[in-house]
Amino acid sequence: MNISGRIRSLRREMADKNIDIYIVPSDDFHQSEYVGDYFKAREYMTGFTGSAGTAVFTKDRAGLWTDGRYFIQAEQELAGSGVMLYKAGEPGVDTIREFLEKELPCGGVIGFDGRTVSLGTGEQYEKIAAGKDGTICYTEDLTGRIWTDRPALPKEKAWLLDIRYSGESTASKLARVRGKMKEAGAGVHLLSSLDDIAWLLNLRGNDIAYCPLVLSYLLVFEDHAELFADVDKFSDGVPASLEEEHIILKPYNEIYRTVSMLPEGTRILLDPDRVNYSLYRNIPDGAAIVAEENPEVLMKCRKNDTEIRNIRSAHLKDAAACTKFMYWLKVCCMPAGEDGEDGTLMDPDTGEPLTEMSAAAKLEWFRALQNGYLEPSFAPISAFGAHGAIVHYSASTESDAALHTGKMLLTDTGGHYMEGSTDITRTFALGRIPRREKEDFTMTARAMLRLMNTVFLKGCSGTALDLAAREVFWKERMNFNHGTGHGVGYLLNVHEAPVNFRWKEGERPAPALEKNMVISDEPGIYIEGSHGVRLENLLTVCEDEKNEYGQFMRFEPLTLVPVDLDAVLPELMTAEERRMLNDYHRKVCEALSPLLNKKEREWLSVYTRPV
Amino acid sequence: MNISGRIRSLRREMADKNIDIYIVPSDDFHQSEYVGDYFKAREYMTGFTGSAGTAVFTKDRAGLWTDGRYFIQAEQELAGSGVMLYKAGEPGVDTIREFLEKELPCGGVIGFDGRTVSLGTGEQYEKIAAGKDGTICYTEDLTGRIWTDRPALPKEKAWLLDIRYSGESTASKLARVRGKMKEAGAGVHLLSSLDDIAWLLNLRGNDIAYCPLVLSYLLVFEDHAELFADVDKFSDGVPASLEEEHIILKPYNEIYRTVSMLPEGTRILLDPDRVNYSLYRNIPDGAAIVAEENPEVLMKCRKNDTEIRNIRSAHLKDAAACTKFMYWLKVCCMPAGEDGEDGTLMDPDTGEPLTEMSAAAKLEWFRALQNGYLEPSFAPISAFGAHGAIVHYSASTESDAALHTGKMLLTDTGGHYMEGSTDITRTFALGRIPRREKEDFTMTARAMLRLMNTVFLKGCSGTALDLAAREVFWKERMNFNHGTGHGVGYLLNVHEAPVNFRWKEGERPAPALEKNMVISDEPGIYIEGSHGVRLENLLTVCEDEKNEYGQFMRFEPLTLVPVDLDAVLPELMTAEERRMLNDYHRKVCEALSPLLNKKEREWLSVYTRPV
Repeated sequence: MNISGRIRSLRREMADKNIDIYIVPSDDFHQSEYVGDYFKAREYMTGFTGSAGTAVFTKDRAGLWTDGRYFIQAEQELAGSGVMLYKAGEPGVDTIREFLEKELPCGGVIGFDGRTVSLGTGEQYEKIAAGKDGTICYTEDLTGRIWTDRPALPKEKAWLLDIRYSGESTASKLARVRGKMKEAGAGVHLLSSLDDIAWLLNLRGNDIAYCPLVLSYLLVFEDHAELFADVDKFSDGVPASLEEEHIILKPYNEIYRTVSMLPEGTRILLDPDRVNYSLYRNIPDGAAIVAEENPEVLMKCRKNDTEIRNIRSAHLKDAAACTKFMYWLKVCCMPAGEDGEDGTLMDPDTGEPLTEMSAAAKLEWFRALQNGYLEPSFAPISAFGAHGAIVHYSASTESDAALHTGKMLLTDTGGHYMEGSTDITRTFALGRIPRREKEDFTMTARAMLRLMNTVFLKGCSGTALDLAAREVFWKERMNFNHGTGHGVGYLLNVHEAPVNFRWKEGERPAPALEKNMVISDEPGIYIEGSHGVRLENLLTVCEDEKNEYGQFMRFEPLTLVPVDLDAVLPELMTAEERRMLNDYHRKVCEALSPLLNKKEREWLSVYTRPV
Repeated sequence: MNISGRIRSLRREMADKNIDIYIVPSDDFHQSEYVGDYFKAREYMTGFTGSAGTAVFTKDRAGLWTDGRYFIQAEQELAGSGVMLYKAGEPGVDTIREFLEKELPCGGVIGFDGRTVSLGTGEQYEKIAAGKDGTICYTEDLTGRIWTDRPALPKEKAWLLDIRYSGESTASKLARVRGKMKEAGAGVHLLSSLDDIAWLLNLRGNDIAYCPLVLSYLLVFEDHAELFADVDKFSDGVPASLEEEHIILKPYNEIYRTVSMLPEGTRILLDPDRVNYSLYRNIPDGAAIVAEENPEVLMKCRKNDTEIRNIRSAHLKDAAACTKFMYWLKVCCMPAGEDGEDGTLMDPDTGEPLTEMSAAAKLEWFRALQNGYLEPSFAPISAFGAHGAIVHYSASTESDAALHTGKMLLTDTGGHYMEGSTDITRTFALGRIPRREKEDFTMTARAMLRLMNTVFLKGCSGTALDLAAREVFWKERMNFNHGTGHGVGYLLNVHEAPVNFRWKEGERPAPALEKNMVISDEPGIYIEGSHGVRLENLLTVCEDEKNEYGQFMRFEPLTLVPVDLDAVLPELMTAEERRMLNDYHRKVCEALSPLLNKKEREWLSVYTRPV
């Protein structure tokens, strides 16, 4: 069945159910950043494969909304499908809301699978329908009815993280969470965010690409808990271990019925930003909702001492892999007469020209050699030359550029290790690069170093510190259009709320940076059609001096990989910034030398020399 | 009647009304920063004259809560009164809340005059009472019943600010506010914050010390408005002008009855942070409350071009007065052989030794010579030597220190002019001062200059910029325990919400800094028992370059007074910081030279020399 046929089938189902407009997003039931094939309903209905986008179908129109990253790809993939592309954010283009307001007939019905929609979005649809004296229908997965060859939900095994990795038993975590439930006067705590559940139960799996999580819901009661997941995932004593903590296994989709049958008067602690619309609507009227951020969010953000010790060890391995890659790239692959302006880099083992994708594969290969390495922690970015200016660039077989001298390669990659997760961006000069690119590289390095070396008072959030990196750019009337940093989970999501570095205050104040939190420091600069630079270190928060002014805090770099000195112009740095760079490189050299071979070690000492 | 007698009388009134605990704060009905004598009920009941504090009376106990600024003064003033001092914030000292929870009998009644209590505080008392199955009584001003010689409410005249000062007619402002009411679907807008009312009606008065405001409430309807104030204040055509805008005058306290009679179904726009508890409670059940920040708050914060032109002119006059004072202080009053460590400064006119208070009076005298000067814009701070370390120091006849060489004088003062309000802090070296004090002075100057020279993207709030000043201190593991800046009104309150520079995010995000906003930049350092430095410039927000990254913004100093070079150690400044200081001093010299006499001018050129 082609796309047109699928849309015809969908419209028959819509007519059957008296639904006037049907919305198909690309989310799973847990607001995950990445989704499995089972959840790619929007791709099935439109043919558009991008990671972000929502399709909307009326009786006679079909539209797809996506953002600037995907305009070209969407145009190609939608061609001939009859689905119209709506370029979100472009002037004059209706938003989904505006489209719905125009297209919904009076008294009409908006339909969607409420499990794939956040509470906030579902409530917005409700309002739009109410504005037309209409209603919503959130209980029908119409795509599911016509999708005959739908991929199954993943069957990957779930496993438990040993306490030597987690640093805290499930029993202890449950006791802390139950303490918070008691404070909130709640007898039940409902969780559907996969990383909160994974952290709380020391549970890991492989259901989401790049995230070692288990598709599941959890209800925590005062004396037991109920875990809703595919029971076939659990073996090897996992169910027995869960039972010891009075955690009962139930089928994945059973959560909806269970929630709907909670007794009158139950007080349910839940996080409105972290439950889907259906789950929320299934809560009986007689129950009271205590709407608060999941207590797990801050708890897992504050890494314990075991976790931090492990994370340091994971970062050391990761740094060895990245530095070996850097040596290989900048030495082994470099064409003879490396100062040439246009020599092509060659893989010495295969004799093939090196490309964005083969370079990324080699970096992953270096990581895979490390003990305890599991998988990439997110979709890797390997962007050469002008591709580096595309913040979310992802090399495909069509775009895969061959690397040559005279330009830079930007790699933003990371790995999950048993000892934690890494996320590092380095930009490498390949041979001699233009002065303008060195200036931008130096500016980016200065920004990263300044933020990394900030000292601050306890109680300070990342919002008040973002300037340490960004003012370097603002002074030159430049900017980078993304946050300067995000929290990082331990073998969970590599983008982990709630800490961050950003210059705009959020609706709710960001939490203070506390000891043992982990956060990225990743300023960048992007010159369209020419080049991009981003440098990213992960930092952990440490206590500094305590005196009559209070408890001071500072950062320590977890990432220990050289900043490519071939692209640095020391004369554009202040003496203080040069000291920061030299201090960092001394640390890198000391930590990594024992992990490298003789040639790499000699090379490292040159690439971490004081400037 | 002495304090004990007053308390006895109060307890009789409490018994009469079946009130178990009665609370007496020191606020007026408008949450004003300064209050008139009529509102000093807490002082009447306890004898404590400090600006902050709350008294609480039970059948057999009397307590006063105040903060660290007032512990010594309160102990002295409460001695023998039978009122116990509760040092707020000290370990082991009950808060008012804890005291109420302990002392209120089950089913008991907490009483207070709801007009003197903010909505939030009133609701807190409600909750505490409810926790004991008790109730509150907010309608009784018991102090008023026993205070036989209570001062009258002020009888000062109200007057209208000409459009050449305000830059926008009342009609235009009302139209804008009514537009916001329409957006909010509100038929009535209730105001009780005096500066919002004064701004909206271009109305000024003299009812509050240091604030040219009129005690009043306002109801804005779609086609008219009702101003509740002492009608005797209005003469000289003011009522006629108000009538032209369909503004009806009604008696001050009539607001409560009027609000209680608003018809069913009325939608009332009000700001919960800016109405008192009684007013809120008087709203009938059938009315709907649209709780939003008063639209006037942002409107008056965004100064119009006329206001900014005027403000620049006011600051120029103020700078002339301050600089003449600086010359007089540092040249005319200096003892012969000025380099001595302990020469006393003498007023050359009176032949008397100069003191904190007489110096402040002289500065005020220089201001009073300026055209359009009205009054000080806040209680002046003039603090010599170790007094400079007391952030809220206010010289009294007892503390009034004589000025001598070898130490610094800190003055934080300001004036209301017809063309706007000023607020400036300068710290002056008197003769030769110790190196440590120069180091602290230099650090403070660097911080002020760095913030003043920050460039930022449109959309940025002061929270994200505070670091520009504070990191200078944090790097040295030092801090100052106050915000770095506050908004400043135009002939209104000198501390004007909502903009500020602070490092901790508030519950709600601070608004973005926009063109023509006015904000102070005032870092400081306070070494207890030794010295204090604070330097404060007012800044206005300007548009800078607009390019592909967006609209950049920067600050321009409104305050143009030399930073005392006798206290600056240029070798502790970066080249960039020295350039900032020299640029500022060049601007000061150019602007002020025409306003000074020959001797002062020559002196100025030395005190604004490049370093």
